Amino acid sequence: MTEKVLVIGTGAIGAFYGGVLAKAGCEVSAVARSGFDAVSANGYRIESHLGDLSWRPSQVVRSSSEYKGEPDYLLVCLKLTVETDPVALIRPALGPRTAIVLVANGIDIDAPVAAAFPDNELVAGVAYAAVSRESSGVVRHHSEYTRLVLGRYPGGPSSGAARLAELIKQGGSSAAVNEDIVGARWQKCAWNTVFNPISALGGGLGAQDILGSEDSRQFVREAIAEFAAIAAAAGHPIPGDTADKLIAGTLRMPNYVSSMGQDQLAGRPMETEALLGNVVRIAARLGVPAPRLGTLYALLKMAEKRTPA
Amino acid sequence: MTEKVLVIGTGAIGAFYGGVLAKAGCEVSAVARSGFDAVSANGYRIESHLGDLSWRPSQVVRSSSEYKGEPDYLLVCLKLTVETDPVALIRPALGPRTAIVLVANGIDIDAPVAAAFPDNELVAGVAYAAVSRESSGVVRHHSEYTRLVLGRYPGGPSSGAARLAELIKQGGSSAAVNEDIVGARWQKCAWNTVFNPISALGGGLGAQDILGSEDSRQFVREAIAEFAAIAAAAGHPIPGDTADKLIAGTLRMPNYVSSMGQDQLAGRPMETEALLGNVVRIAARLGVPAPRLGTLYALLKMAEKRTPA
Repeated sequence: MTEKVLVIGTGAIGAFYGGVLAKAGCEVSAVARSGFDAVSANGYRIESHLGDLSWRPSQVVRSSSEYKGEPDYLLVCLKLTVETDPVALIRPALGPRTAIVLVANGIDIDAPVAAAFPDNELVAGVAYAAVSRESSGVVRHHSEYTRLVLGRYPGGPSSGAARLAELIKQGGSSAAVNEDIVGARWQKCAWNTVFNPISALGGGLGAQDILGSEDSRQFVREAIAEFAAIAAAAGHPIPGDTADKLIAGTLRMPNYVSSMGQDQLAGRPMETEALLGNVVRIAARLGVPAPRLGTLYALLKMAEKRTPA
Repeated sequence: MTEKVLVIGTGAIGAFYGGVLAKAGCEVSAVARSGFDAVSANGYRIESHLGDLSWRPSQVVRSSSEYKGEPDYLLVCLKLTVETDPVALIRPALGPRTAIVLVANGIDIDAPVAAAFPDNELVAGVAYAAVSRESSGVVRHHSEYTRLVLGRYPGGPSSGAARLAELIKQGGSSAAVNEDIVGARWQKCAWNTVFNPISALGGGLGAQDILGSEDSRQFVREAIAEFAAIAAAAGHPIPGDTADKLIAGTLRMPNYVSSMGQDQLAGRPMETEALLGNVVRIAARLGVPAPRLGTLYALLKMAEKRTPA
């Protein structure tokens, strides 16, 4: 069979995995809003060391309601800001046998989708991929280390996740299945929840700016320790050496400004609730003290007031 | 006798109190760096509801070493940033009988001056005055409520403070003597230590932006509670209703952006150590938990990296 995939959210991640799945032989379509004309004319160009992943969508639509047919997979690759409602974007294209694949960053972000569509399989995806949108329809894939972790939400085995991981490997990239995908979300957010808000609140700080002194590294360690305590209380403990490993790994990175830092500089909405607000609320519900993360959250909410929507 | 006063730091506060003391009959001179030519030609124009406080300095000098004679008072009105060393500015003009009057915001800011000049009387000043520098040599005095609190550092009675308070009243403004002037510094910083960093980290937030939601007011309350615990441990407790009073008072203010917020927006150095770093270090020394203030401090130190010096 030829799997039908509709990609919702064709930023860098969505366009990249669309290309990987097209290379694997899937019939991949795309919802393209701002870039509709360019994508209709030229498709997506993906510049990658993996070879030619450029692809021309089977259907290019302006909204998911215009898609013709029933997709096997709805590949939803979104930044979850206050302006984005994945449920509203998913609903019009969803068929009874469609699996929803939510590739996004954050904690507690799958629950609203699961609640809205209880009869569809929901696969959560955690992407490790250094990709960037260069212009309309053009994406650059930077890094050697690229991996998509997939798993059934809220947990357990999933034929949909297993099949999709297989297709991504056929397309030349790397994928893994994790039966505790919520734990994988916590694991990834140990970086995002701490570094993204700091980057934004510092006025667009790069990773090296953030880790430039022992005092600031100590602060990052304490903030990650709060995060780890919340993750453990939520039933998804992260390894005890996470802070040290993340700091060491980040110190090897270029002075990259996180997406949230770039959003704050550009006055765009930020992933405040997905990355941080939900974590702070879980901490409050479980009675785990989180004064540092709470401070970052309070500041970010205030800073958003200055951000034109 | 005619008191001789040399004002070091003729920003808005220094120029304003120079005018008040000139009106009281003192012989007031000024160290004017950037505005030397304008001040030499025209003196200071002070626009105030108190009447004409404009004054022409007895001597205008480019640095305190050029001052001729021995001042009775060195009125030092500085923003204490990493670029400002009050000891270096004071030393050249100091005579054996000169009283130093340090009018500045911050905690633990008098100790270096006291240590450098143990034989001179040191009067600490806490200014409540809404004044702004409009242009070179021109200062506007906005508010009805204006008060300079003076006291011997580190405490106790002071003839110098008493006499200066008398002169300021003669000049038409308001002054008070406080024998626990360090306590008065803590009292004033309950606002500055919390609101200034938030304003800067939010990207130049106004007072109303900061207090715009119950969540943010709750955060401000928690941060002031940390500050109050540190003040109490340091032997200078502030009233229990300080947070509520400051929030209520601030909610009546216009959406004013704090000096630190303005400095951050303009890329100028900020009073990070005087307002916040010293408080966090006192907390650590006394074993008082201060995770919220510590977070603000860590973020501000990182944000300063992006600020051109």
